[in-house]
Amino acid sequence: MKGIPFLFLLVFSQAYAQTDPLPSWNDGAAKKAIVEFINTTTEKGSPKFVAPEARIAAFDQDGTTWVEQPMYTQVVYCLERVPAVVEKKPELKNVEPFKTVLSGDRAAMAKFTMPQLEMILAATLTGMTVDEFNGEVKKWLASAKHPRFKQLYTDLTYQPMQEVMKLFRANGYKTYFVTGGGQDFVRMYSEQAYGIPPEQVVGTAGATHFGYDKSGKPVLTKVPKLLLNDDSAGKPEGIHMMIGRRPVAAFGNSIGDKQMLEYTQAGDGARLMMLVHHDDDKREYAYGPKSKVGTFTDALMAQAKKNSWNVISMKDDWKRIFAFGKP
Amino acid sequence: MKGIPFLFLLVFSQAYAQTDPLPSWNDGAAKKAIVEFINTTTEKGSPKFVAPEARIAAFDQDGTTWVEQPMYTQVVYCLERVPAVVEKKPELKNVEPFKTVLSGDRAAMAKFTMPQLEMILAATLTGMTVDEFNGEVKKWLASAKHPRFKQLYTDLTYQPMQEVMKLFRANGYKTYFVTGGGQDFVRMYSEQAYGIPPEQVVGTAGATHFGYDKSGKPVLTKVPKLLLNDDSAGKPEGIHMMIGRRPVAAFGNSIGDKQMLEYTQAGDGARLMMLVHHDDDKREYAYGPKSKVGTFTDALMAQAKKNSWNVISMKDDWKRIFAFGKP
Repeated sequence: MKGIPFLFLLVFSQAYAQTDPLPSWNDGAAKKAIVEFINTTTEKGSPKFVAPEARIAAFDQDGTTWVEQPMYTQVVYCLERVPAVVEKKPELKNVEPFKTVLSGDRAAMAKFTMPQLEMILAATLTGMTVDEFNGEVKKWLASAKHPRFKQLYTDLTYQPMQEVMKLFRANGYKTYFVTGGGQDFVRMYSEQAYGIPPEQVVGTAGATHFGYDKSGKPVLTKVPKLLLNDDSAGKPEGIHMMIGRRPVAAFGNSIGDKQMLEYTQAGDGARLMMLVHHDDDKREYAYGPKSKVGTFTDALMAQAKKNSWNVISMKDDWKRIFAFGKP
Repeated sequence: MKGIPFLFLLVFSQAYAQTDPLPSWNDGAAKKAIVEFINTTTEKGSPKFVAPEARIAAFDQDGTTWVEQPMYTQVVYCLERVPAVVEKKPELKNVEPFKTVLSGDRAAMAKFTMPQLEMILAATLTGMTVDEFNGEVKKWLASAKHPRFKQLYTDLTYQPMQEVMKLFRANGYKTYFVTGGGQDFVRMYSEQAYGIPPEQVVGTAGATHFGYDKSGKPVLTKVPKLLLNDDSAGKPEGIHMMIGRRPVAAFGNSIGDKQMLEYTQAGDGARLMMLVHHDDDKREYAYGPKSKVGTFTDALMAQAKKNSWNVISMKDDWKRIFAFGKP
């Protein structure tokens, strides 16, 4: 009856494949850490049990749950909005940095200083009503494509991270974005692309001004006043402001996520801190200490080891990266 | 068989009493508006159906879901914290407005100017870590009592509004506080006293500063910088910042809630706007256009009529006000 153990194994592995909540993950330390964290924090009687109301998991977005190279998606949006803004305000046509954007000189754009970038962000993200802004972003997202992958940006989410977020939610966790990206921008696709509702998006946020339009209808207008710079120290500050609870799990991919992971770890009980490491230039990108976006310094890697944060290798831990195309 | 209809009525009215979700409400226009709104927005196929993810209901707190007279609870907290603050900073002892607070002269305190009140708020609400603040508020809430009702402040919630919030939640609505009170303060009791979790409290919010204590542990410190003044126009602005969706129902009780009700009403589809009117000086308080807190101007009453906002009469619409004591 030599066939029986083989049949048993076959059936067992099929059942496992069907119920594996993380099918896009290779077996390894990272996958194991996630599954164990979920199990130990949700099994009744577990010493690491986390009460349902305290189940908060925070995810950075750019570079953690979708592609951030060669440029943050929102920056691409802002640059591509410049012609429409200049059409309404022709006096900007020959003024820097708008002149360079209109020239299409990508190399020159890559050298913009922070104040120049801020001028572009202010001109393209403020000065309109919230409804107008939402409409523009929706329209853009429906057609703009990534230069390398030739896909809609919302199709460039990482399949393994989608599975992680679903697994957390299936176990009673509220999944939050805690992103340096614009709160209003990310809210336009977070529900559809990730299952994260607008009210669970913590991001860099500008003020709005409540007033009335000509017909007397109440409107909110986006104004160039920064309320929350949701990066680095701004992440735990934003979490406190917007959620009011300390997360028990946090996922990031760069030095901008360091303080969020430290803050998450400093709470009592079970904790999970993970960093996505971009080391796969074939399927996505490999970048590290010298990248302009998503910088992963050697010091961060050293801290990850010292603090027992789990580093996810995109190359080794992820069976597939995107839902589209070949694994 | 004359007994049968009577028996039927008796059984029917008992069944009704058992299933009435608003037993502390008298039958009337206000109760009817709430029940009809819930039914028409949640019945499948209803022309006013609201998608589950869009079910957001916003509640003011002071004066709408609990007592705000003779003084906002948080202001009482701040005044009662002054001695402890002065003990740590003796240089404030002979400085106004702290000197007056220490004297216990309530009449003089009632005359504090806004800048003086702000000095007291800054001194008692900032300059400590979030954990220290939370601990102090919890301790105070467990013992401080209202001067007239001799009850813990968290026992002074309005039973009819508790029922409304439960009814909304039972029908898939997320209930939010949108309060002029301090976000961090209200979050300390909102879940226990109202079933509203901290992440669903939008309130006046000060900034925090992320840093490290002497042992290197990450801490958030409350600093005297206002991020969100969640009153009047600040309410819709705060709703956009913190929730990112327009509520479909909003409850308030004063001119500070006007813009929130306007903003709620300006959305498409079913809408419910309600104002609690304090007209019951026997069971609670009667106050109106000239009150320092919870001002309900004649202009607001006129606008309520014009805009078809429902005005709730505490005297006529509420069978009982508190869970404790006689109805």
